[in-house]
Amino acid sequence: MKAKKKIIIVGATGTMGKYLAAAFEKEHDVIRVGTTGGDFQVDITSTGSIERLFQKTGSFDALICTAGPTYVGPWKNMTDKEFRKGLEGKLMGQINLVLIGQHYVNPKGSFTLITGALTYEPVINFANASAANGAVEGFVRAAAIELENDVRINAVSPTVIENSPQYFPFFQDIPVTMKQLEYGFRKSVFGANTGQVIKPYWESR
Amino acid sequence: MKAKKKIIIVGATGTMGKYLAAAFEKEHDVIRVGTTGGDFQVDITSTGSIERLFQKTGSFDALICTAGPTYVGPWKNMTDKEFRKGLEGKLMGQINLVLIGQHYVNPKGSFTLITGALTYEPVINFANASAANGAVEGFVRAAAIELENDVRINAVSPTVIENSPQYFPFFQDIPVTMKQLEYGFRKSVFGANTGQVIKPYWESR
Repeated sequence: MKAKKKIIIVGATGTMGKYLAAAFEKEHDVIRVGTTGGDFQVDITSTGSIERLFQKTGSFDALICTAGPTYVGPWKNMTDKEFRKGLEGKLMGQINLVLIGQHYVNPKGSFTLITGALTYEPVINFANASAANGAVEGFVRAAAIELENDVRINAVSPTVIENSPQYFPFFQDIPVTMKQLEYGFRKSVFGANTGQVIKPYWESR
Repeated sequence: MKAKKKIIIVGATGTMGKYLAAAFEKEHDVIRVGTTGGDFQVDITSTGSIERLFQKTGSFDALICTAGPTYVGPWKNMTDKEFRKGLEGKLMGQINLVLIGQHYVNPKGSFTLITGALTYEPVINFANASAANGAVEGFVRAAAIELENDVRINAVSPTVIENSPQYFPFFQDIPVTMKQLEYGFRKSVFGANTGQVIKPYWESR
């Protein structure tokens, strides 16, 4: 019999977060965090906002992040300015959730961040996400050897997901089912692995 | 008989850059760029400084970057502030060399950026470099499908190098010889490959 966990989902009002929250709340205490909706709100591009979030939630067993804004647009318009959207959002936003959240996570707790197939399988217009993903994956492997009290950290790296058909034409990939996505996050939250990038999709290699 | 290339080396006064400049100038026109020394100076954390550099060098056939400052220090002191050293340096610095440099590179030219084994093989105190490397590698794969006029881009990812013995105790790895490092860069600059991470070292996998 599994112990009930306190699970914070940042991005809980998005397509992935909503599905995961519904799946996990059957057996666990889920705290939904969104930009404007959810039980609590956070702006992950602000360290102050992240700090205030954890002061409100208190200690937790697992943090899942499915939020990661990046710049999507034509390469010819991509300058330092546009590139910083993913740097502040998907990259530093998620890294700061860990750097700050480590002071609130319970022993044997876990962090699960979101990356994506774009790390290895680029798509036209999505270079900013490829870079942000790569950074988060490098960070996850490094944080795994630094975090204390048996705290674990992984990334889940899906490709386009079946509940986001608006992206199918861009990715031309085999969509990840919501159930596969859920199993990817379950592996991170309830497994014993750390420092891993969990890929619930078929790689073209 | 190979055509003579105009090769810009950013980081030319560092350990790697000095070696590569000496090796390549036997057959090519090498422009040495440093922070304070070299033929020209650049601060890669400033887009204005990068733009001025290319205005002075004019068009080129290959840009090699061996410069990439990151934060090295204990995890417990690592906050958003320290983490940004690698974000501005090794990550955005190198990405901006490409985003700006693409307007100055000759057709069939190339960019070669520097990452390192830390992307996949973390070392205590070097999480910032792991993240910066991962971002640059993701960017390289994405930029390869965006760059036009047959311009190529790769990263060279060495582990600790033989001419930097001061790092041996931290890395506990099989050092890359300077000659292996040179061959790694040669593969990128003079080969036909693009979007690759060239690893002149033995991986523990």
